[in-house]
Amino acid sequence: MSSYLVTGASRGLGLEMVRVLASKPASEVSIIIATIRSAAPAALQEIISQAQGRVVTVQLEVTDPANVTKVAGEVKEILGGRGLDVLINNVAVSNTTPTSVTATTTLLSTFDVNVVAVQNLTLALLPLLREGTLKTVLNMGSIVGSITYAKRFMVAPDPAYRVSKAALHCLTRLYALELEAEGFTFVAVSPGWVQTDQGGPYADLDSPTAAKATLDVLSRNREDINGKLVNIKVEGWENATGLHKYDGGDLDW
Amino acid sequence: MSSYLVTGASRGLGLEMVRVLASKPASEVSIIIATIRSAAPAALQEIISQAQGRVVTVQLEVTDPANVTKVAGEVKEILGGRGLDVLINNVAVSNTTPTSVTATTTLLSTFDVNVVAVQNLTLALLPLLREGTLKTVLNMGSIVGSITYAKRFMVAPDPAYRVSKAALHCLTRLYALELEAEGFTFVAVSPGWVQTDQGGPYADLDSPTAAKATLDVLSRNREDINGKLVNIKVEGWENATGLHKYDGGDLDW
Repeated sequence: MSSYLVTGASRGLGLEMVRVLASKPASEVSIIIATIRSAAPAALQEIISQAQGRVVTVQLEVTDPANVTKVAGEVKEILGGRGLDVLINNVAVSNTTPTSVTATTTLLSTFDVNVVAVQNLTLALLPLLREGTLKTVLNMGSIVGSITYAKRFMVAPDPAYRVSKAALHCLTRLYALELEAEGFTFVAVSPGWVQTDQGGPYADLDSPTAAKATLDVLSRNREDINGKLVNIKVEGWENATGLHKYDGGDLDW
Repeated sequence: MSSYLVTGASRGLGLEMVRVLASKPASEVSIIIATIRSAAPAALQEIISQAQGRVVTVQLEVTDPANVTKVAGEVKEILGGRGLDVLINNVAVSNTTPTSVTATTTLLSTFDVNVVAVQNLTLALLPLLREGTLKTVLNMGSIVGSITYAKRFMVAPDPAYRVSKAALHCLTRLYALELEAEGFTFVAVSPGWVQTDQGGPYADLDSPTAAKATLDVLSRNREDINGKLVNIKVEGWENATGLHKYDGGDLDW
């Protein structure tokens, strides 16, 4: 009977996470609030049509603080007196070019979407999360934002994305440490290299697999994930080499 | 015969680093370009008056990209055909309150000064740095921006500052990895807890000590500091406990 909010549900991992959640029984997932920027695309409409009212869309412009406040009010109405159990901050931007840090001009705009918007939405929903039973926030992190592993990813596109994810990892950990006494779980999950618009067609994992593996993280013990950057676990990829290893382990910052 | 540019030279560590550099012989430090936001304070004027023309001030508003471009032109004129050897990105902002991440509303403005401005100034000066002999960029990092050590610093003020420094550490490492083949050194230095306006009167180190220790990092072997976050080394503090240990070691991200 848990309630979920997933941002960026129009496409990619956000869409697939909504699909995975909607496929679970209503006794497990009672409602999924899917935020989208504009009209729901056909794929999301199809999920909604088969979800017997359990998937509700809300229009959200994450970088507009006034809109974030308004949406928090709408979410409260939708939940009708219940708390929000799980917030999944999935929205992110990445400019696939450039690959050179010396050609990067999008640090501020990338940070605004990938970090500031997470902060604003989390704060706006914190009263509802406090009333929830799971008190869980999953932020989409990234192994390419791990400073420790930076050398392995020098071919990765978009230094601004990497810098923003390092910042988001720090923010996630600060939340985890500050709110753990209240029973909260804050975790950053690296969803792997996924065949989305961002990851391209040659990526390791299809998006349904990555979405399921990302949500699987939430069934781990709280003490194993709170305040961490965790890798997904995907059968058949546990012993792959380097970047392609999805063994469910902790990732260094 | 090296040339230095130090940002934020009006006060605190920036002012003290200019003082330390100016105290070295001209055969070692030929010119120090000290950037300030407005008029030079008396303490800086005094250093200038005793520096026999080796300290030159330039007005710089780091968050104004047009001004950064203009200042790069002025620096080129001042150097008169020589390259810039060492850039010290020292300017940073910190709001000493709040201490709670749930009361933090300054992520974007803090990131703009502490990260975007570093990127913009570094890029604007990169042609001059490429013509320099030392090709060194020292970014002021901070142990409070280490995600690994986050738990130790939950009493530290300003989560926005911490998040911005984590981002700056990532940016520093990306630069180091990308430009090491050109002979560059990019290092983030954690200057310790210093008795400045930011650190307060009860901090561990006076600012002359911290400024000297920060600059001392530049005399280490390049391979020991490039792409790292390094601790300063201060005599008498090498074996102190926890936060107060200044042993010159590498710090985790």
